[in-house]
Amino acid sequence: MEETLELARERHADHPQLPLALRLIRNTGVRTRHIVQPIEETLKHPGFEERNKLYEAEAKARVPAVIRRALDDAEVLPTDIDVIIYVSCTGFMMPSLTAWLINEMGFDSTTRQIPIAQLGCAAGGAAINRAHDFCTAYPEANALIVACEFCSLCYQPTDIGIGSLLSNGLFGDGIAAAVVRGRGGTGVRLERNGSYLIPKTAEWIMYDVKATGFHFLLDKRVPATMEPLAPALVQLADNHGWDATDLDFYVVHAGGPRILDDLSKFLQVDPHAFRFSRATLTEYGNIASAVVLDALRRLFDEGGAPERARGLMAGFGPGITAEMTLGRWQTADETQSVRRT
Amino acid sequence: MEETLELARERHADHPQLPLALRLIRNTGVRTRHIVQPIEETLKHPGFEERNKLYEAEAKARVPAVIRRALDDAEVLPTDIDVIIYVSCTGFMMPSLTAWLINEMGFDSTTRQIPIAQLGCAAGGAAINRAHDFCTAYPEANALIVACEFCSLCYQPTDIGIGSLLSNGLFGDGIAAAVVRGRGGTGVRLERNGSYLIPKTAEWIMYDVKATGFHFLLDKRVPATMEPLAPALVQLADNHGWDATDLDFYVVHAGGPRILDDLSKFLQVDPHAFRFSRATLTEYGNIASAVVLDALRRLFDEGGAPERARGLMAGFGPGITAEMTLGRWQTADETQSVRRT
Repeated sequence: MEETLELARERHADHPQLPLALRLIRNTGVRTRHIVQPIEETLKHPGFEERNKLYEAEAKARVPAVIRRALDDAEVLPTDIDVIIYVSCTGFMMPSLTAWLINEMGFDSTTRQIPIAQLGCAAGGAAINRAHDFCTAYPEANALIVACEFCSLCYQPTDIGIGSLLSNGLFGDGIAAAVVRGRGGTGVRLERNGSYLIPKTAEWIMYDVKATGFHFLLDKRVPATMEPLAPALVQLADNHGWDATDLDFYVVHAGGPRILDDLSKFLQVDPHAFRFSRATLTEYGNIASAVVLDALRRLFDEGGAPERARGLMAGFGPGITAEMTLGRWQTADETQSVRRT
Repeated sequence: MEETLELARERHADHPQLPLALRLIRNTGVRTRHIVQPIEETLKHPGFEERNKLYEAEAKARVPAVIRRALDDAEVLPTDIDVIIYVSCTGFMMPSLTAWLINEMGFDSTTRQIPIAQLGCAAGGAAINRAHDFCTAYPEANALIVACEFCSLCYQPTDIGIGSLLSNGLFGDGIAAAVVRGRGGTGVRLERNGSYLIPKTAEWIMYDVKATGFHFLLDKRVPATMEPLAPALVQLADNHGWDATDLDFYVVHAGGPRILDDLSKFLQVDPHAFRFSRATLTEYGNIASAVVLDALRRLFDEGGAPERARGLMAGFGPGITAEMTLGRWQTADETQSVRRT
């Protein structure tokens, strides 16, 4: 945080809105962030081509270890995976990294590939939901979710609007992976998912695509979007016979501090319920689609929830879209695990 | 075809491999193509930013009418659609066009969005398969598939390798849409799908991402890939108790003429079976992910197939990936249709 504020002061000394930018950055509550390159390299723009090559090289260097840990934690082998859902909006490759992963990590040649690049921060939730759909269709299947976001590779030195200065102080880099098992395992047993798009907000979070790459545009109305999204969360829970204001755990995208504060307010839920998401934001910044998976990891680290505890997970991002999931905590049934092996 | 050959002769008069390029282009058998701009505009490169803005403007201008016809043909309303699967590799928007479509065309705010940009020509098959998965998970659901490919907006005047010259004579622009209904309707009742990636071929079809946009790279080994893919088609059919060499209809991606010739050869299927795909190639060129949907339309135009006739659909693209589907022809049950309304 201190380094970020200092950099903002140095680089934008003459910016008329510098005090506002500093206040907004301070208010994010982001204390530390991780970025793939040293800060002096990050602040340069070597061109879209080199940026994208960096994205590819860093993804290939860093993603496999994260996937291996997810597979180990879920007690599955690469050959047990039926579909890879790879979400990432901070670099573009065709074929997607999924092809490279299948070749390099021992996944079957018949593994389905679902690469999604255009759902931004909502893609973590979308990945969980598409994995849920897939395992609903094929109950014996296992889905691997990977979120790889190097937001620092989308830093645009010439964008100095207030939304850009705030974004520069908010976004971080991160990789997350998770396995959705069709049967067994410990974690959240997914029960119902849904999407919601707030009408006429498509321009509020968007990329301007230029020769210099993706330029992230953030409208100042975005932090207030939990007011229209909270009813969508309530509705989805209601469809499931649950009360969204009274669940046992919440794992949501922490786009910024206002989102968590407003969710507390509009769902009338104790702010402590959003501690996982807040910790991700504080320690890593907004790591886009990886936030929900990292926040979920923190629930695991806390020892999980009581058996059959009810929870809500949600990603929020461009559209403006919410990707929402309801599920219950489940601890592995040892008998079942033994039967599997 | 004549215009394309003439243009190639003019623009590449000094190219040492011009005779080869002309022969390859002539061999594609592509007689006509449609492109979104006049040819003189197409041959200019106004920059990635303007190209991408053109992509967005043309997609917004042209996609809705195609979707409306697909909805009408399937006898469903926008509000009957539960998921939109939008595949397109020739422009990049975040949010995806799905958000705009939901806002502008009366789809529910709860419609799921699955935008896929990184499966190239295989994405038409992938879209069918993900729609099938979705309707398997939720049998009452309906999926809308949209393939929007403006390959001419990826023309790169400075790429003069033989693969690029061939591609310039092969690819066309096209939009296709289809509805996969969970219940009822006339068309192919999807029964089983699968993917196959040929190991270690990720570089054979790929985008080089540069400040000038997406540069399509086509390896000369690509036309021969039906030899390793045919066994994957046979295997999928075998898993379903079917014989891939003896089905009633075939709707496959027509990447080029060799693909269709080789499929005939390696599956030992009469070339006439690929008439739908060949007609798409001849009349429109390779329209990427839209090929399979256009070829399928030609099966409908021919009056469909006998009740319960067995068929294979497949998209082929970067990875190198095949996205394959097996299904049976079904004619709408009138009783069921009435019950639905």
